[in-house]
Amino acid sequence: MADGRLSPQQALEKLRWQPVEYISDFARLDHHRPLRQSMPEFVYGEGKSPVQVAAIMSAMAERTGSALATRITEAHADAARAVLPETIHNPVARTLSVNGFPKAEIGKVLVIAAGTSDLPVAEESAEVLRFLGNSTRTLYDVGVAGIHRLLEHANYLQESDVLIVVAGMEGALPSVVGGLVESPVIAVPTSVGYGASFQGLAALLGMLNSCATGLTVVNIDNGLGAATAAHRLLTRMRKAVGNLAAPAAAEEAVAR
Amino acid sequence: MADGRLSPQQALEKLRWQPVEYISDFARLDHHRPLRQSMPEFVYGEGKSPVQVAAIMSAMAERTGSALATRITEAHADAARAVLPETIHNPVARTLSVNGFPKAEIGKVLVIAAGTSDLPVAEESAEVLRFLGNSTRTLYDVGVAGIHRLLEHANYLQESDVLIVVAGMEGALPSVVGGLVESPVIAVPTSVGYGASFQGLAALLGMLNSCATGLTVVNIDNGLGAATAAHRLLTRMRKAVGNLAAPAAAEEAVAR
Amino acid sequence: MADGRLSPQQALEKLRWQPVEYISDFARLDHHRPLRQSMPEFVYGEGKSPVQVAAIMSAMAERTGSALATRITEAHADAARAVLPETIHNPVARTLSVNGFPKAEIGKVLVIAAGTSDLPVAEESAEVLRFLGNSTRTLYDVGVAGIHRLLEHANYLQESDVLIVVAGMEGALPSVVGGLVESPVIAVPTSVGYGASFQGLAALLGMLNSCATGLTVVNIDNGLGAATAAHRLLTRMRKAVGNLAAPAAAEEAVAR
Amino acid sequence: MADGRLSPQQALEKLRWQPVEYISDFARLDHHRPLRQSMPEFVYGEGKSPVQVAAIMSAMAERTGSALATRITEAHADAARAVLPETIHNPVARTLSVNGFPKAEIGKVLVIAAGTSDLPVAEESAEVLRFLGNSTRTLYDVGVAGIHRLLEHANYLQESDVLIVVAGMEGALPSVVGGLVESPVIAVPTSVGYGASFQGLAALLGMLNSCATGLTVVNIDNGLGAATAAHRLLTRMRKAVGNLAAPAAAEEAVAR
Amino acid sequence: MADGRLSPQQALEKLRWQPVEYISDFARLDHHRPLRQSMPEFVYGEGKSPVQVAAIMSAMAERTGSALATRITEAHADAARAVLPETIHNPVARTLSVNGFPKAEIGKVLVIAAGTSDLPVAEESAEVLRFLGNSTRTLYDVGVAGIHRLLEHANYLQESDVLIVVAGMEGALPSVVGGLVESPVIAVPTSVGYGASFQGLAALLGMLNSCATGLTVVNIDNGLGAATAAHRLLTRMRKAVGNLAAPAAAEEAVAR
Amino acid sequence: MADGRLSPQQALEKLRWQPVEYISDFARLDHHRPLRQSMPEFVYGEGKSPVQVAAIMSAMAERTGSALATRITEAHADAARAVLPETIHNPVARTLSVNGFPKAEIGKVLVIAAGTSDLPVAEESAEVLRFLGNSTRTLYDVGVAGIHRLLEHANYLQESDVLIVVAGMEGALPSVVGGLVESPVIAVPTSVGYGASFQGLAALLGMLNSCATGLTVVNIDNGLGAATAAHRLLTRMRKAVGNLAAPAAAEEAVAR
Amino acid sequence: MADGRLSPQQALEKLRWQPVEYISDFARLDHHRPLRQSMPEFVYGEGKSPVQVAAIMSAMAERTGSALATRITEAHADAARAVLPETIHNPVARTLSVNGFPKAEIGKVLVIAAGTSDLPVAEESAEVLRFLGNSTRTLYDVGVAGIHRLLEHANYLQESDVLIVVAGMEGALPSVVGGLVESPVIAVPTSVGYGASFQGLAALLGMLNSCATGLTVVNIDNGLGAATAAHRLLTRMRKAVGNLAAPAAAEEAVAR
Amino acid sequence: MADGRLSPQQALEKLRWQPVEYISDFARLDHHRPLRQSMPEFVYGEGKSPVQVAAIMSAMAERTGSALATRITEAHADAARAVLPETIHNPVARTLSVNGFPKAEIGKVLVIAAGTSDLPVAEESAEVLRFLGNSTRTLYDVGVAGIHRLLEHANYLQESDVLIVVAGMEGALPSVVGGLVESPVIAVPTSVGYGASFQGLAALLGMLNSCATGLTVVNIDNGLGAATAAHRLLTRMRKAVGNLAAPAAAEEAVAR
Repeated sequence: MADGRLSPQQALEKLRWQPVEYISDFARLDHHRPLRQSMPEFVYGEGKSPVQVAAIMSAMAERTGSALATRITEAHADAARAVLPETIHNPVARTLSVNGFPKAEIGKVLVIAAGTSDLPVAEESAEVLRFLGNSTRTLYDVGVAGIHRLLEHANYLQESDVLIVVAGMEGALPSVVGGLVESPVIAVPTSVGYGASFQGLAALLGMLNSCATGLTVVNIDNGLGAATAAHRLLTRMRKAVGNLAAPAAAEEAVAR
Repeated sequence: MADGRLSPQQALEKLRWQPVEYISDFARLDHHRPLRQSMPEFVYGEGKSPVQVAAIMSAMAERTGSALATRITEAHADAARAVLPETIHNPVARTLSVNGFPKAEIGKVLVIAAGTSDLPVAEESAEVLRFLGNSTRTLYDVGVAGIHRLLEHANYLQESDVLIVVAGMEGALPSVVGGLVESPVIAVPTSVGYGASFQGLAALLGMLNSCATGLTVVNIDNGLGAATAAHRLLTRMRKAVGNLAAPAAAEEAVAR
Repeated sequence: MADGRLSPQQALEKLRWQPVEYISDFARLDHHRPLRQSMPEFVYGEGKSPVQVAAIMSAMAERTGSALATRITEAHADAARAVLPETIHNPVARTLSVNGFPKAEIGKVLVIAAGTSDLPVAEESAEVLRFLGNSTRTLYDVGVAGIHRLLEHANYLQESDVLIVVAGMEGALPSVVGGLVESPVIAVPTSVGYGASFQGLAALLGMLNSCATGLTVVNIDNGLGAATAAHRLLTRMRKAVGNLAAPAAAEEAVAR
Repeated sequence: MADGRLSPQQALEKLRWQPVEYISDFARLDHHRPLRQSMPEFVYGEGKSPVQVAAIMSAMAERTGSALATRITEAHADAARAVLPETIHNPVARTLSVNGFPKAEIGKVLVIAAGTSDLPVAEESAEVLRFLGNSTRTLYDVGVAGIHRLLEHANYLQESDVLIVVAGMEGALPSVVGGLVESPVIAVPTSVGYGASFQGLAALLGMLNSCATGLTVVNIDNGLGAATAAHRLLTRMRKAVGNLAAPAAAEEAVAR
Repeated sequence: MADGRLSPQQALEKLRWQPVEYISDFARLDHHRPLRQSMPEFVYGEGKSPVQVAAIMSAMAERTGSALATRITEAHADAARAVLPETIHNPVARTLSVNGFPKAEIGKVLVIAAGTSDLPVAEESAEVLRFLGNSTRTLYDVGVAGIHRLLEHANYLQESDVLIVVAGMEGALPSVVGGLVESPVIAVPTSVGYGASFQGLAALLGMLNSCATGLTVVNIDNGLGAATAAHRLLTRMRKAVGNLAAPAAAEEAVAR
Repeated sequence: MADGRLSPQQALEKLRWQPVEYISDFARLDHHRPLRQSMPEFVYGEGKSPVQVAAIMSAMAERTGSALATRITEAHADAARAVLPETIHNPVARTLSVNGFPKAEIGKVLVIAAGTSDLPVAEESAEVLRFLGNSTRTLYDVGVAGIHRLLEHANYLQESDVLIVVAGMEGALPSVVGGLVESPVIAVPTSVGYGASFQGLAALLGMLNSCATGLTVVNIDNGLGAATAAHRLLTRMRKAVGNLAAPAAAEEAVAR
Repeated sequence: MADGRLSPQQALEKLRWQPVEYISDFARLDHHRPLRQSMPEFVYGEGKSPVQVAAIMSAMAERTGSALATRITEAHADAARAVLPETIHNPVARTLSVNGFPKAEIGKVLVIAAGTSDLPVAEESAEVLRFLGNSTRTLYDVGVAGIHRLLEHANYLQESDVLIVVAGMEGALPSVVGGLVESPVIAVPTSVGYGASFQGLAALLGMLNSCATGLTVVNIDNGLGAATAAHRLLTRMRKAVGNLAAPAAAEEAVAR
Repeated sequence: MADGRLSPQQALEKLRWQPVEYISDFARLDHHRPLRQSMPEFVYGEGKSPVQVAAIMSAMAERTGSALATRITEAHADAARAVLPETIHNPVARTLSVNGFPKAEIGKVLVIAAGTSDLPVAEESAEVLRFLGNSTRTLYDVGVAGIHRLLEHANYLQESDVLIVVAGMEGALPSVVGGLVESPVIAVPTSVGYGASFQGLAALLGMLNSCATGLTVVNIDNGLGAATAAHRLLTRMRKAVGNLAAPAAAEEAVAR
């Protein structure tokens, strides 16, 4: 969908056709969602114009106090900073964020990436997790063809409450990690590879068929999905801990 | 792989060819695994003869005190009960179990199934979770084409710490559930369906592409995998709770 | 197919090779079709040059009194307006229309879209339906992960004679809608999604395997096809109503 | 899923494991459905034992007065007739029915099949339509390689309010039919064919890509789905006709 | 494969790496081939630079007296005409030809195309056939959804010795044609279509599964392949006719 | 489709449901077809009961003087010989034939098979060709990995008017043959192979992508289709020869 | 392909149809092959009757002194031993062998298998290698989810001249092995796994996309292919060693 | 992944986000690898900026004395030569190399390519092999449709210790080569072809299903992978030869 829409001479005509619900705020914001799911909606930048992304982020920041966009380009970043100067841009993760959540004290995530080409997806996961207030560590460039690199960091692996493992090509890293830890492992296939990788299909199938039991998988390149899956888990873990220590307060925290 | 191996007249010859590691115990048992992963190895019945399944279960039960087999038939059950009379057979789940783990007090799982044909996979999940000592509830026959059935049970959904959602055909149920709860949701596609369901591929793709953020997916019909993923999560949650209450004891509990 | 064809210096040569039937009117117009199918041929803009689209629309408008083109760009719109100033351009739907059909009094269509990215396809359906004179309402941004948004509009759903449901990603919305209404539901998968959505294949398979009985499906992104399917249905319904009230007049109306 | 479940010696044990909701009636019957959708639930015989099918049909017939099962075998038929002697068995369609709906006066369906191997699917459609009270004609063995056979019946085609076109192999028949009529056409691909037909995939893709605009498609071999799609349409058409003639009575009819 | 190869400053270096056989004539020309197969090698333009195409055509024309290139662009045409002014360019077929073969008196081909978008492939076939000296007629825009257009030309169809039928989308036209004639029918699927046409896969599968017996199929968009298949057939037919009339001369003709 | 249809106790009931056109002759015979296509309809045995095959063959033989069935089993053969003692059974080709056509003097076919497992498909082709009166030779077990076996028979190859090349696995044989002859080559992929041959898909794709220009391809295992394609070609060649020698008689021959 | 061919009453008829080359020896034996490739042809048992396998093995053993068959069943073994009592049967590998080659002194192969279900394929490789005289070791049940099992055997890995790594499911083991050794690694995907393993496709794609450089892959379950690939390599290595030590003798050895 | 990263005004911000391990050297270099695998890591140019490639090559050249990059463009070459003037650029192979390894005396490789479009992949293999010090010959443009071209070079084929065979389209060349030599054959499918070649899938499947036993396959277009597979083999062969002649020195050579 190319963006010829903004040429001035057709602006009036286009307005006439823009469906009513769509014009006012580009996308209906679901303000009850944080209550229900302990996290906000995110802005998916791909296919949206810089102006649209900036406007939606402004609307979200105004109403909820914070905002996060993924799959953005430099042009989106420029547009967003023009209206929200406090916007932070992570160019590797391709994210924009405004005013992340307060840092939680409980729950550690480790994001592991097999190769340097998997970094954008891994950083997308890490950035979303940090924005949502989770203690997040990263461990990059530890592919299975050099297994000693991974084994050096066994203690990092074992002390994490949830691990996100990002890999393209054959997607074997989650199986190895899954055999080393007792914590939940979320596997993210990436579209890295060529020839018969079929844009990440090889890695996706590899992860779904892992011989390490209890792995779960998200869509190809879906760093955001892995992060929110981990956040669902950590939120529930914090609630469990809070339930014992001080149940009422915990309920309040979730509704904040 | 047909089982002509057991006909008496060729037994001697076969022994000669059986690789050494394979003969003594059919499969090397990994006795350090419970320490590392808080759960034992499971016996996968498909492709193994009744005699093999019974022998492996005996070996496991003798050394570790308990055993669980999945994808078993009536014939496997008969063979196992002949050597281990205390074996419990769940014919819907197609499991055999001996001496499940003590029930944990913290952490609730809910297993949801869309249609009656998804029951064997859902029950496999539920049975593995019960064996591992988790508090497990089930909610069956709540497909998206009759969405009111699901909504009646919203409170069950919201009080669960992790939800396993099993569905074939278009695999849409996890998306709806994922929009109703803040807890982790593990989606299990089943091979139920016909025509262009392609043995569960339609459901698998549907779940991977869910519009509800933070869902994770396991392989087609992999009830065991969903259960162990949920168990990884609950184990870690219990550890977190224990860490606050009495850290040293918790460590001990994991190493038990 | 790039359009280098229009460079002046090779025009003569090209004419020599243009097959005879093709030159005079770019595509043979089937003037008997409105009689047979109660709707005209449509101009499919993709792969045609602005000059071709404008010329075909002119020819159609001159002979039949009206014309509609789909999958057009701003450049097509400019070229068409230069020769047919009364051309109306809907930039979201990517359509051009000249002199739509008179509005029918019987039969209501509802076009539903799951997400904002599905709008171009949904608007293509709506625009074609309006052009053909059908009473057309739209309901957008009601995905299954926020099922309450859809349920708020249950009355809209139930009073419609046919529903077109447009969705990408997992394509689950038609199943939910199909469970809420007795009217025909036409599902349109869109190529919205990433990773393992495989350009709409996931949504297509999901819709074909819907657990809601009696859904039908059209090709990926085929908003036009869904609209004409709904129009076939409404035309026949009007004929049935007319047959009772005043059969002869109804026949006349179809032949107009 | 083999049915070893019924061997007498394990009946007690199985009961212990059968989930509560499942035992009493094998599948929860949705008694509000006829009100909402003007048709009952159908029993899908594949994967169910003869005893299960007979029991579910009895339960449905007792509560709603009628019942229909699809994809049944001779064994299912025998079991059903043992408990419901009035059961009618159509062995070509592989259906069982008890006490069909009263015949409607308005609305004609035509079921067309390309080859003799497509008959089971076409008859499934026809049988479901007859059960639901629709005026149903059939036209068989009219493949596109002998196009004159089809053209001989042009008047049948044009006077039908909805056409179901069943074809395997290349699935081209719906395109030809769609070009000859103005009424809605529902295409049903069948798994008939060999080699690169890939169990109906070739026919499915052919139908989705039809050059005849306004066709809709259901899943491979899904005769039931095509019939219920046609029934949704005819029900709405009857309602429209009734609305003009006597609106209040029509509403009543639907709620009956 | 971008063509940065021609920038002057790296020319010397590149030569050093160019494999010896490749430099002198870009591709080894097989001069014995006309003797063996009654047709020359063709130049496939895609992926070759304008300079390469021009050079290879010159070499072929010089040694064999004629040359033909397919899949060429305007830039290729300009380069070829600069060195071979007698080059004829068919921009619809995307071919360049120099000095076609003498026209044969026996054997008629008919090239049929379903839609206007199939023209480039159909014209490629027609142009190659004309170049090789075959009597070639064309019949365009006769899709199956308007079957009467095709039937009007039944006599053209029946008097042709071989028919090439080009179609995209569902690829049904060859089946209809195959049922109308006794001559060989070569089906060419095109990549025309969208959504689930999968770049011609739907049409390819449709043609392979045709219910009209004795159709053969070539690769997607392979107009050249269909033409040379038809030419193989006509050459042999001419040989057969010649064998009866004057065998010795016929042999000579083939060796010319 | 299992054949429980013939059990005596349900015969009456079934008759009631059998569609009228279907009962009398199982499949409508198209008696004008020999005139139009110079060959009869064939009986496809797969999925038909022995009784059905025997009855259809009798009907065909009675009305047209001859009959041929493919994909038959021993049981079909027994049933056919019981009613038509002159039936000839080729168990390798899996064909039944009654009273083949008179042998034509012009036109030679060569059927080549790569491996011994390709024989059933190759023999199906050869048997159909012989039945239709064509001079047919075979050359078997000449795979590309032992290319010298093929080259020994170069003269056979070159004197044939059309070649059918049957191969499974990688399907490379037609490319090599196509490079050695000027005659038409029809490639038949077989489902022979294992692992990633995907039931003949590898061979099919290989043949469609052949580097030898002018090959055509039929469906996987479609020996019948290759034979009828060759017969279309030879019929037309004979007509061409006849047209020169004695046109009127040739027309007569075709109309016989 | 069922084997009804052997019923006595049709034997004469069948002979009449059996192609001449096929009868005498079922498959042409290529007696020059050992000279050219240092290994004999193997008998592929699948799809051949016990009588055929026994006859071919006898013919081979008589002419070349030895024979090996793969993919055989107990029935094949019984038939072979009846005519060749010295036949050795490895039931895990599903092989029959007669008189293996003398053991070579140079070159070590290691066959590694990930899981116990991969054993039949791994043993097929090992058995073929032993038959051809290669020094062959095996290492089984060393999957990547328990990576320490593999690392314990690092010295075995490093002293092998070529490694065959057999794995199903995600197929990750070859990547890990490939990162630990400098020797050639041949990866064999197996069809072990369920759900989205798609009969070994997941493992195949994983291996083709390995991040360990310099792995090569054979077809799914193709233990024989991996073994002969390794043998080609070792034969050449022995030749190289022999060339230095005593060139003339080495040439002789190869021609033996 | 577009490279907007280098625009000066965002450099500081980006640094803040660049993960620590990634900044210092773009990718962790594994300095122990040459010892373990007798070859260095290679730089994969695709997706890396010219500055990144130049920096990594400099780092490698400084520490290990040599460096090689694949999949590079002219821009990469310019950047590399600016910092490493001794860089050699092979524009056909798309490689950059600095200071290749000393030439080994033992072991000959032959790289064969089917068509001129396969040259970039074949030259990538050849260039990597030359860089690693192997004696490398090439034989190009010898496709199977002109089999005599290949047979002329039979002696080249037979004296090579390992053959890399590169082919697109149907990928048949490796089967023919594999039948002519006893040495190892590594098949490389290329993405050359159109229509149903599916970007090299047809060639890949063809090669995996080769009827020539003992072929191995690498990923589509993976010239580098084929070269390193051949190098693994030749290294081991040299070690074997050295072991006999002078074991200690050989060990030293490998560790150099």
